[in-house]
Amino acid sequence: MPLSEFDVIRKYFKPADRQTADVRCGIGDDAAIVRLPEGMELAIAMDTLVAGVHFPLDTAPEDIGFKLLAVNLSDMAAMGAKPAWATLALTLPEADSDWLAGFMQGFNDLAGQYSVSLIGGDLSRGPLTISLQIHGYLPQNKGMLRSGAREGDLIYVSGTLGDAGLALKVLNRELEVDPKYKPLLFQRLNRPEPRIELGETFRDIAHSAIDISDGLLADLGHIIEDSHVGAVVNTDLIPLSEALAELDTAEALQLALTAGDDYELCLTVAEDMQASVDQTATEQCPLTCIGKITSPGKGIQLEDADGRAVRISGVGYRHF
Amino acid sequence: MPLSEFDVIRKYFKPADRQTADVRCGIGDDAAIVRLPEGMELAIAMDTLVAGVHFPLDTAPEDIGFKLLAVNLSDMAAMGAKPAWATLALTLPEADSDWLAGFMQGFNDLAGQYSVSLIGGDLSRGPLTISLQIHGYLPQNKGMLRSGAREGDLIYVSGTLGDAGLALKVLNRELEVDPKYKPLLFQRLNRPEPRIELGETFRDIAHSAIDISDGLLADLGHIIEDSHVGAVVNTDLIPLSEALAELDTAEALQLALTAGDDYELCLTVAEDMQASVDQTATEQCPLTCIGKITSPGKGIQLEDADGRAVRISGVGYRHF
Repeated sequence: MPLSEFDVIRKYFKPADRQTADVRCGIGDDAAIVRLPEGMELAIAMDTLVAGVHFPLDTAPEDIGFKLLAVNLSDMAAMGAKPAWATLALTLPEADSDWLAGFMQGFNDLAGQYSVSLIGGDLSRGPLTISLQIHGYLPQNKGMLRSGAREGDLIYVSGTLGDAGLALKVLNRELEVDPKYKPLLFQRLNRPEPRIELGETFRDIAHSAIDISDGLLADLGHIIEDSHVGAVVNTDLIPLSEALAELDTAEALQLALTAGDDYELCLTVAEDMQASVDQTATEQCPLTCIGKITSPGKGIQLEDADGRAVRISGVGYRHF
Repeated sequence: MPLSEFDVIRKYFKPADRQTADVRCGIGDDAAIVRLPEGMELAIAMDTLVAGVHFPLDTAPEDIGFKLLAVNLSDMAAMGAKPAWATLALTLPEADSDWLAGFMQGFNDLAGQYSVSLIGGDLSRGPLTISLQIHGYLPQNKGMLRSGAREGDLIYVSGTLGDAGLALKVLNRELEVDPKYKPLLFQRLNRPEPRIELGETFRDIAHSAIDISDGLLADLGHIIEDSHVGAVVNTDLIPLSEALAELDTAEALQLALTAGDDYELCLTVAEDMQASVDQTATEQCPLTCIGKITSPGKGIQLEDADGRAVRISGVGYRHF
């Protein structure tokens, strides 16, 4: 006998409901009821993964569960919010126990790390489409918006860029890499690490922030558009992993600037904060200054270390 | 040139962001940021509609937009919460302007009625699947749970039951009705009326509540299971519309008890509240006492007016 909706909820979802004190009513009623600690506001974001669009059809359910939460947590990181609860809208063709167990395993791997509790959602039959809404705490009037960048700000990115894009090209047999790089590249594609601690640290430092989901140019583009500024990026400073560094330079740069799916943070900070930013960087989370916010009008200008204009093609992932 | 993701957000979603004072950051950043008025808790629910599963493929986009919000608002009604904000995860095969305009028209028809603001979400390409998360206010420690029913409670339902189920059977040519009933029946199927005011009124009166989405037997079943009680329902008292009343009695009863998709409320209240409940009923929102909460052990017993056991087949919509 196939699993019923209620079996699925009881067996796979309920264990992910941590029943924390701030949740008065979790999974199992018409709605969840949550309380906010005094002085806190709520950051909420929702991201969807569609089979065959956001991940290859043969992706392991563990990786899907992990990535679903990771991409949502990345939005919390970009706001500087502390993750609290998630709700899940899971649409799947059949209630397959193995798939569900794997999916929730991957979800819980990451949820445990950040004490994220699953407090509700909806289960439907249909083509595999998964939406997660994430909720996080923000102290009153805090939160890094895309609209806060100021002329003269330094532009920082965390980690390295282009790895997930390269992994996808390797999977699709469009590019080849030394096999030694594959585990790390696939880790970057399937199990991106949301920069939660970085976001919380920078909440009081950065003028603006965004997570790099559609590619640096597209996402930095949102910052300069919403902040009514421009930007100069020194392409020689873009942080690349060893795998990327071994590619043809133009190819590597295009991946790093336009491929997306890396879920690193792009932050802008006042120039006089440089020392304290550099202190914040760790081996696990390097921070690289790649450019500067300028006056509005010219969009994002790409230059090499000698100040010569750099051209690349493509402008980031288009959803339509 | 097809619409880009950002065109769609700007043209169709942004106008539904009412920019109310409790929303510090709405559509357009990595996350929305909301504030809760003092003394309030937050009720959150998420419901998904999948094309071909939750609505026929040729359903008008206006009706899909309306129903998506309606089924979510119905969860707020069932908790007694006052709706505030929604987030939308819209996955659709292509960014079709006419479809999007119609969909948002239907959404806004209902959102305007309850001042619901669209504050964020995600737009993806894929098979038509739409998840909405709704957020509503609840005063501290209020909210009608499924677990609060007590032995001796009277069981009430709002409106009439089985209309949406009959409409679907008419659409599928499994049943015929007098054409004069069709507009009302299709209205019930496509534009269900969430019982928001009723929920807010009963928040201080009812011991338990649920909205009838999967059929009365299935949904009342959740109440008796979560409350550890039983129930007796007098099938002669089930409120039926004229269209249902003209059907064969067994057929009408089966639709009313098992078809679901009506989004009426089922409430249980202490017996001594009967007079005040009856005063609450209006022509637009009749309330009918259909039975009583009993001691646990026998599930839901169906009886006719003479106390004879009534049998029906089917137990409500199964999602898997």
